Amino acid sequence: MNKGSLKIKTSSQRELQDITTQIAAVLSQCSTVSGVLYLFNPHTTAGLTINEGADHDVQKDIITALSHIVPQLRYRHAEGNSPAHIMTLMTGSSLMVQVEGRELVLGTWQRIFFCEYDGPRTRSLHWKYIPDTAC
Amino acid sequence: MNKGSLKIKTSSQRELQDITTQIAAVLSQCSTVSGVLYLFNPHTTAGLTINEGADHDVQKDIITALSHIVPQLRYRHAEGNSPAHIMTLMTGSSLMVQVEGRELVLGTWQRIFFCEYDGPRTRSLHWKYIPDTAC
Amino acid sequence: MNKGSLKIKTSSQRELQDITTQIAAVLSQCSTVSGVLYLFNPHTTAGLTINEGADHDVQKDIITALSHIVPQLRYRHAEGNSPAHIMTLMTGSSLMVQVEGRELVLGTWQRIFFCEYDGPRTRSLHWKYIPDTAC
Repeated sequence: MNKGSLKIKTSSQRELQDITTQIAAVLSQCSTVSGVLYLFNPHTTAGLTINEGADHDVQKDIITALSHIVPQLRYRHAEGNSPAHIMTLMTGSSLMVQVEGRELVLGTWQRIFFCEYDGPRTRSLHWKYIPDTAC
Repeated sequence: MNKGSLKIKTSSQRELQDITTQIAAVLSQCSTVSGVLYLFNPHTTAGLTINEGADHDVQKDIITALSHIVPQLRYRHAEGNSPAHIMTLMTGSSLMVQVEGRELVLGTWQRIFFCEYDGPRTRSLHWKYIPDTAC
Repeated sequence: MNKGSLKIKTSSQRELQDITTQIAAVLSQCSTVSGVLYLFNPHTTAGLTINEGADHDVQKDIITALSHIVPQLRYRHAEGNSPAHIMTLMTGSSLMVQVEGRELVLGTWQRIFFCEYDGPRTRSLHWKYIPDTAC
């Protein structure tokens, strides 16, 4: 099975949640030991990113900075969550991660994060595996 | 045919233009019903993003916010469009979109947007399809 | 050989370094003349982007603007490089580039940049080639 979905439960309005372990677990189902893993966030007020996971303060600093960077304006969108849509544009909705030996190829300090910008909510995440081919 | 180009005509200096219908139309030409679609913006003052398409105010709010976020400094680049280059870095130049059953896999509120930051201009967009293989 | 790593030596705290020539050179080793090239930055205080390479002032303006956009706050992360982590989120850690005729498909003014946000350092970059298949 080279595709699927995961559920992500976020617990605050804005947070970076480390999902690396969940992502690594899907590789056991994939058809080859090497390839590229595509991750997609189907939400418009949340993103996906790769950043430092060793010191949890980095995640908090990122949220603090984004909340400063995106201005508090009188936005048109009546739902009131325009800042979350803007943070999503700045972050991006998808990732590609290299896979070798059925493991994610990440740098020493890197982890994969689900970026919640308008929570808490139950979110989903789609993945699809692009296997290396011998063709 | 698993690759091609599209023309995009933008109508203001800065705008997010919903191009989902044009992108979905190229899938009829692709060699398989499932795969991943790569989209690439070959311009340095425009980007590609996925965000909410239901309320058009979100697109306007994003442009308003980006215009606030990128400061009006005395930039070195003589062409005067440095803010557009910076918005391009923040947005990104390419997207990957999952394809199943010859349809784009997007979330309920998601649409694909061409982000014009230095228009109006006639722009192009390259696409390439990575078909699922049985290998 | 469809994968490998490159060394990148940066020379200042923050800079955009044009790596297009180094990237183009790896294509001679790839198994097919067409495909998609995946580039990955395994560092958490550096990114990858595509932007204008003709006028070097654009690279400087981008660094100047990012240094204004990311606020100087009292961050929690003790290492003192939180702004670099935030710039990395805004930039992104990976790129996909189309390859046809063993050449990168880029727009007229586009070049590929390694974005150093916490240098100078010796950095690495991973690449993996996804060849077009006849399947």
